[in-house]
Amino acid sequence: MELAVTGGRVLMPDLTVARADVLVDADEGVVREVGTDLDGDEELDASGGLVMPGLVNAHTHVAMSLLRGYADDKPLDAWLQEDIWPAEGELTPEDVRVGAELGMLEMIKTGTTAFADMYFHVSEIVDAVADAGLRARLGHGVVTIAKEADTAHDDAEESIEVARAFDGAADGRVSTAFMPHSLTTVGSDFLEEYVPQAREAGVPVHIHANETADEVGPIVEEHGVRPLEYAREHGLLEPEDFVAHGVHTTPEEHDLLAETGAGVVHCPASNMKLASGMAPVQAMLDAGVSVGLGTDGAASNNDLSLFDEMRDAAMLGKLAADDASAVPAEAVVQMATQGGADVTGLSGGRIEAGAAADLVVVDLDAPHLTPGHDLVSHLAYAVMGSDVRHTLCDGAVLMRDREVLTMDEEKVLERAETAAADLTERV
Amino acid sequence: MELAVTGGRVLMPDLTVARADVLVDADEGVVREVGTDLDGDEELDASGGLVMPGLVNAHTHVAMSLLRGYADDKPLDAWLQEDIWPAEGELTPEDVRVGAELGMLEMIKTGTTAFADMYFHVSEIVDAVADAGLRARLGHGVVTIAKEADTAHDDAEESIEVARAFDGAADGRVSTAFMPHSLTTVGSDFLEEYVPQAREAGVPVHIHANETADEVGPIVEEHGVRPLEYAREHGLLEPEDFVAHGVHTTPEEHDLLAETGAGVVHCPASNMKLASGMAPVQAMLDAGVSVGLGTDGAASNNDLSLFDEMRDAAMLGKLAADDASAVPAEAVVQMATQGGADVTGLSGGRIEAGAAADLVVVDLDAPHLTPGHDLVSHLAYAVMGSDVRHTLCDGAVLMRDREVLTMDEEKVLERAETAAADLTERV
Repeated sequence: MELAVTGGRVLMPDLTVARADVLVDADEGVVREVGTDLDGDEELDASGGLVMPGLVNAHTHVAMSLLRGYADDKPLDAWLQEDIWPAEGELTPEDVRVGAELGMLEMIKTGTTAFADMYFHVSEIVDAVADAGLRARLGHGVVTIAKEADTAHDDAEESIEVARAFDGAADGRVSTAFMPHSLTTVGSDFLEEYVPQAREAGVPVHIHANETADEVGPIVEEHGVRPLEYAREHGLLEPEDFVAHGVHTTPEEHDLLAETGAGVVHCPASNMKLASGMAPVQAMLDAGVSVGLGTDGAASNNDLSLFDEMRDAAMLGKLAADDASAVPAEAVVQMATQGGADVTGLSGGRIEAGAAADLVVVDLDAPHLTPGHDLVSHLAYAVMGSDVRHTLCDGAVLMRDREVLTMDEEKVLERAETAAADLTERV
Repeated sequence: MELAVTGGRVLMPDLTVARADVLVDADEGVVREVGTDLDGDEELDASGGLVMPGLVNAHTHVAMSLLRGYADDKPLDAWLQEDIWPAEGELTPEDVRVGAELGMLEMIKTGTTAFADMYFHVSEIVDAVADAGLRARLGHGVVTIAKEADTAHDDAEESIEVARAFDGAADGRVSTAFMPHSLTTVGSDFLEEYVPQAREAGVPVHIHANETADEVGPIVEEHGVRPLEYAREHGLLEPEDFVAHGVHTTPEEHDLLAETGAGVVHCPASNMKLASGMAPVQAMLDAGVSVGLGTDGAASNNDLSLFDEMRDAAMLGKLAADDASAVPAEAVVQMATQGGADVTGLSGGRIEAGAAADLVVVDLDAPHLTPGHDLVSHLAYAVMGSDVRHTLCDGAVLMRDREVLTMDEEKVLERAETAAADLTERV
């Protein structure tokens, strides 16, 4: 079946905007053609709208949507130890499923078609992705510090097993990664033992790195090198690997990322909300680092809209560089689309013949998007997630005219409210 | 006519949330009662929603909506001199009217019911406010530097005249202020001559102050005191006065603001986008300063949604304080409602018997607002402007079920596109 997305304008891979139709091969899940007056077996109306690549949320913990607003306005350590970890300790597989569905519903409604996720009870997330119709790179997050050796090994092995078991699931829409939680919460002996297993399994490694200033000091003290040099020495930073945050990074670390080809996922909202700091994003871009955007979990954001994240990234990037011309609109739109796809290794990120048919239509006919001096500026600074009219992933329509077709919205919200209330009772 | 807003929850003045109805006296424009099972002559459905005070945009240049996305990602000076001022030089009274209508349409649709505005061709803005049904404090911005003395005096006199002429217009919904543009763009002799005239006219003074680091140095050098001390010495900072920005301010200046009772309007998005810096908002709150929130003009934001501004303020406030517990959700909700009303001297900001009936209903039934662990957190971090269902000002319904009743939305958007295209041709 061929679907013609007609009557709109299209955001091209070079970020210019052209009046064009997009012909989608729904069976193959790819874009056949971008051109004028295209006909398909079916039509999807994009008139008055902008057809753009589906957004890529390159770092999140989607099931944490269940903890949205559960604990705010606390420093990272206290927030984790007093609120988040105790709550997460109570999460059942069913809770993770419900939270993941809630987060995916929000992503579909705000124009995200692909995401990278680190969490636990991953089989539940795989199932939810299969049903929701999104594309995702999933993994089990490993923590080894402050754990018995056996338990720690079990955790690391689970991450490898999950990566092996689910790579290619959901008709290929799910891929996986080995996901040690961070450079400070996983021991170096574990990296030495398990990273080679990830290579053998043919999956990348995704890890939090250089998120807070507090994480950097101990690594420098213990190992005598900066965190990303330490990561490299322990087998990380292969071209397909990607690290989340990179807030406290040096020019030398940016060069290392650029040389290795490993990517960074910038999470500006989380970095602000947890007062982690300002990532030097313009410096990374100047050094040639691949940068994607991530929302992080909903508990430190508190939404999963990449449109908010683009705006945050453009604004925070200017403050970090002390230069209002830093991290311009084009850069954040690139990060949220092609950048995220490149960093995570997920398909999508550009609309052109042969590319994955992961795309969304954004309504432009609204006061906050008028006048149309510059549509890329609008995407970066003014579009709201609710402006997304249609969402397609892998050639399938996931949302049409704001109605999500792959999920029962009312039911997802009800189940999430119930699960959240039950969780609060238990903690 | 009495209008009962029924079936929802209500954000009370202490920021707790209660299940209640709100009875509005539409003729008098006030809230009669907040309670249960209230009946009116008409009903407005708030079921599944939160009834909250209309938001107060305490510093903007509403007609600049016509320049949304016109010039982005440039430093303040170049942006003003190369792009904004040349474009503004071409704005006709009709352009200002069209831009003001566009901005007000956006404000009504994103839950703002009152705003403070500094611009020119103010009579056009007065007329637009009268028709739109909003509440506003309006003024003519004065610049005297780099002008012939006669022209500069004409400008200052126009600001005084505008303040006298329109105070109380639009059935009392318009009030005014004398608005010297900033401490560095208006000469001290002009402050000395015209501020007393503003006092005589019984209007407050609104001025930009301490926005960038570059503004502070020259004042300290020339006058030997910090900018706000200089302002005080020149008759400013009476309790009803309010300054925009206050980014580069010292603890002594915060004490001065707290002692005088003059307010500050924090504009986090503009301060980030123009790389002006991080206002020490938590320090201001700790010192007892009255703080409101403003979007600044759409060209440096690029939207007029106070919900975005709350999120920005909470996030930036944490970075500025290097403390994730700084500027919590409650603080930004307070700033966007009561704080803004207090700072600008406009009615509204709280829902209680006798208060102005300026209120909005926010839909809570959405994935990004689920689960409902903490509704104040949602207002600060997760609500989008598009979640606003109804908007009332002065007891009148301006928007019902997303349909704006006081403006022809399609016509406003068309006129704005035409005016923007014409403007681009002329510049």
